[in-house]
Amino acid sequence: MLNTRVIKPTPGAHSTPLLIKNILLSGQRYERSQEIVYRDISRYDYATFNQRICRLANALSAAGVKAGDTVAVMDWDSHRYLECMFAIPMLGAVLHTINIRLSPDQILYTMNHAEDIFVLVNAEFVPIYKAIENDLTTVTNTILLTDGDEKTADLPGLVGEYEELLAAAEPTYEFADFDENSVATTFYTTGTTGNPKGVYFTHRQLVLHTMTQAALMGGLDSMRLFGNRDVYMPITPMFHVHAWGIPYTATLLGTKQVYPGRYEPEMLCKLIKQEKVTFSHCVPTILQMVLNAEGAQDYDFGGMKIIIGGSALNRSLYDAAKAKGMKLSAAYGMSETCPLISSGYINLEVEQGSEDEQAAYSIKAGVPVPLAEARLMDPEGNFLEHDGKTQGELVLRSPWLTQGYYKEPEKSDELWAHGWMHTGDVASIDEMGFIDIRDRIKDVIKTGGEWISSLELEDLISKCAAVKEVAVVGVPDPQWGERPFALIVPHAGKDMDARILRDHLKQYADEGRINKWAIPTQIACVTEIPKTSVGKLNKKVIRGDIAQWQEAEAPFLSTL
Amino acid sequence: MLNTRVIKPTPGAHSTPLLIKNILLSGQRYERSQEIVYRDISRYDYATFNQRICRLANALSAAGVKAGDTVAVMDWDSHRYLECMFAIPMLGAVLHTINIRLSPDQILYTMNHAEDIFVLVNAEFVPIYKAIENDLTTVTNTILLTDGDEKTADLPGLVGEYEELLAAAEPTYEFADFDENSVATTFYTTGTTGNPKGVYFTHRQLVLHTMTQAALMGGLDSMRLFGNRDVYMPITPMFHVHAWGIPYTATLLGTKQVYPGRYEPEMLCKLIKQEKVTFSHCVPTILQMVLNAEGAQDYDFGGMKIIIGGSALNRSLYDAAKAKGMKLSAAYGMSETCPLISSGYINLEVEQGSEDEQAAYSIKAGVPVPLAEARLMDPEGNFLEHDGKTQGELVLRSPWLTQGYYKEPEKSDELWAHGWMHTGDVASIDEMGFIDIRDRIKDVIKTGGEWISSLELEDLISKCAAVKEVAVVGVPDPQWGERPFALIVPHAGKDMDARILRDHLKQYADEGRINKWAIPTQIACVTEIPKTSVGKLNKKVIRGDIAQWQEAEAPFLSTL
Repeated sequence: MLNTRVIKPTPGAHSTPLLIKNILLSGQRYERSQEIVYRDISRYDYATFNQRICRLANALSAAGVKAGDTVAVMDWDSHRYLECMFAIPMLGAVLHTINIRLSPDQILYTMNHAEDIFVLVNAEFVPIYKAIENDLTTVTNTILLTDGDEKTADLPGLVGEYEELLAAAEPTYEFADFDENSVATTFYTTGTTGNPKGVYFTHRQLVLHTMTQAALMGGLDSMRLFGNRDVYMPITPMFHVHAWGIPYTATLLGTKQVYPGRYEPEMLCKLIKQEKVTFSHCVPTILQMVLNAEGAQDYDFGGMKIIIGGSALNRSLYDAAKAKGMKLSAAYGMSETCPLISSGYINLEVEQGSEDEQAAYSIKAGVPVPLAEARLMDPEGNFLEHDGKTQGELVLRSPWLTQGYYKEPEKSDELWAHGWMHTGDVASIDEMGFIDIRDRIKDVIKTGGEWISSLELEDLISKCAAVKEVAVVGVPDPQWGERPFALIVPHAGKDMDARILRDHLKQYADEGRINKWAIPTQIACVTEIPKTSVGKLNKKVIRGDIAQWQEAEAPFLSTL
Repeated sequence: MLNTRVIKPTPGAHSTPLLIKNILLSGQRYERSQEIVYRDISRYDYATFNQRICRLANALSAAGVKAGDTVAVMDWDSHRYLECMFAIPMLGAVLHTINIRLSPDQILYTMNHAEDIFVLVNAEFVPIYKAIENDLTTVTNTILLTDGDEKTADLPGLVGEYEELLAAAEPTYEFADFDENSVATTFYTTGTTGNPKGVYFTHRQLVLHTMTQAALMGGLDSMRLFGNRDVYMPITPMFHVHAWGIPYTATLLGTKQVYPGRYEPEMLCKLIKQEKVTFSHCVPTILQMVLNAEGAQDYDFGGMKIIIGGSALNRSLYDAAKAKGMKLSAAYGMSETCPLISSGYINLEVEQGSEDEQAAYSIKAGVPVPLAEARLMDPEGNFLEHDGKTQGELVLRSPWLTQGYYKEPEKSDELWAHGWMHTGDVASIDEMGFIDIRDRIKDVIKTGGEWISSLELEDLISKCAAVKEVAVVGVPDPQWGERPFALIVPHAGKDMDARILRDHLKQYADEGRINKWAIPTQIACVTEIPKTSVGKLNKKVIRGDIAQWQEAEAPFLSTL
């Protein structure tokens, strides 16, 4: 360690810790009259927002919530969820954002594992809660969240209904300062095997993530995604990595925010129009759903900017959205990374290229954001070259990565092997710093000694006019080890079989973009592709389905 | 202290300290082909910039610079200064930016007080250096900075000339990680009495200041000052609070940067035109100088955005700059605050007002930036109301304030009395959070039991068409305690005396904006107003001059 001149901040007075309350104070100073909107149901300004957070803090304190307690929320995206994202950590407590798309058993597991003490439950989830209540080991109290008139529910330890509690509480609260390394939030990420794993983030981490996001989205002219006169609506659930942390960034700047509740395509389209939403973010499948929504063709999405993450943004979706007037930009991150690590960018050099080349850079995972560092690593822990060709596991450093999986020391060590956070993604990084995600390590298809990227194949197949959606996985093959298999949802009325697909892919093989043996020799046409709780392709389920179909020699399999 | 769940970052691997090197890495990833320009003399891209910083680090290390050493720079604004702002702190050493406008005695004092070990000296300052060299107590080595052909100088302990040292050094350097609370920079601020006082900032503080500045200047649409396709040129010296930290912010985003050397109005105008500068910052007097520069009327300043700080931005300068196509915005800060604390902003409510009302908000000190907190305090340490009327001393908290004055424990305690940093400024804060600086505490004029703001009087007097420049100070008066006195530089060919001034100010007294006894009864018309080394009105010198003139009954005094 270098012998630098270290001045430790004086505790208290002379130093200001990085706390979530600073984010709230900032937005309110910039735009106290700006609005927070919840569907057609609620609308108030930042001054009220601030008062409601104070009321919530008073209500929670009165109910017994203390610093260090874990307080869980089961809700769709709402203004109340946003209030919890501030009030709970600002009390020094830990907010557990429950993934309501998990199975009841998995929800139960995460609540016991996180040691939830208080739970705020949306009326819609009372049945799920009732189903697991007898097995909850740590919860003492509940609070009901509802848009309805029924202000009570059969919940154990019910303190009351959220709005009634707020109405009865004082609208001011003096939030104390505390250590910026205090845990603020936790949530669970599901792998394809084993129990969900808990990640956690401190006040310091969330503040740094927020400042970086604001600097990045506001300051880069060629890819300017977000300023505080935009109107923001998440289409990534708030339980999933705090809706990518963007509600914090929007609050920092005093931006108008719109929360859509449950994601119903018609409601999303309606809110986009009615509230003049200009900025959002989602996984590709959700955007596809919005574009396909009933009557979506009548809506004007012109000027709307959307960050796409969670899965690769393929060119056909990019083009389809562009035709609707939307500007898409890819970003990369995961639950473990808070999540933002990199985002699409057009630099002066790329700007010299054709529109087509620029689009190719917009859909890549992009360049690492300020304060984040990305490298490629081989299985032995050696760094690999950033030449745009060499592939290796993407490993990361940044001030906002989870320090581990909660109460899972072995998995935490694996995550942080060789001192870098392992993403499980295979990538290349070019000389300008652009990251290109090639595949999940476990989804790479190993055929005849070569590696085929399932993502790249999906991208090329999606360019076929007949293809609406596609997933590619490797299936065991006695001769080749593995062979690629394509699961395809064709557009209504379009023909699709293995031969049509081969003819489509042959051009890319001729161009040298893929090897000939990367062309799937077997495909299945289906009406729907299995997805995970956060809308990603569920390749584990897909592999299982294919094994069954092959076993049964299902008639809808098409073989060359 | 609340009993929160604290997770201390694991030293090393799992945590990433906030270090200045992260700022450099970020900009280079965004725009490696963007340029750093120095007058007509040098021009290179970010990739070269990065290599030169590595070369400098190697050259300094070879010369014996170690972590913890203080390395001083005496230079005009240059690409070399920018390189020092990175390489020196990135080695774990402390960069001392010497205020070259101080007297040789004061420079000597600061260098001995800071315990400078290495000094980089511009050839122009060799005579100053020679004049003090025998009294320097800690310096062991020097490096010559020059644009000329003469690559040596009679400097004690001369290691070599900067460019020759860089050319001989390796272009890569593995910068180590270290504690983010390591001091990175130090410099001295001069009060009106006593020795200069040293302030100091850590890596953590500079990174947080940079991230906040980028978020603020990029993310606020109604006052958007800066994006990375702007072209940046400082007109505030780099020795003065790191040119307000904006070179760090510009580097973070990969912005083109232009360094003008010594501030010669013609060169500044030429660079603005030639390099298409769109963004700068300065004190009001420097902007006045640029607008008055020979041939400046021929230049197109259209679209240029300028942050004004250091002194109050008055309305006449705002209007004059606007007529030239410039967009001015005020900001507030001081040497002790790194410096950014607040900046002008137009929120949705202000936007409803007339253009005139909006201008009034643009020239105020503005609203506190994210992570900064501002309050008003009375002399006993009580907080005062934020009602837009109540005046008190402005006190601050933020993660980037100096922890004290170097080796001055008593002055440090005074600075941080009652746990808040004291600015010495009298201000009011309105309900929307806008700070309005009324005066320096010591410049307030106390007359007949009332307080008169010298700043407000200067503002009103500056609106008189005959007035080019004005300073108002309080002078002792046997009857009133103090009386305001105006020092005025009239426009060429315009008449000005105490009577004309009274007639001009009478309207404001009639409107109730000032009291009748605030109208100065004595003025002096001069050709120049004394300024401090950073271009502010030097009221200490002005008071001394007036006392002498009054003593001598100087003929140019005009009395009612």
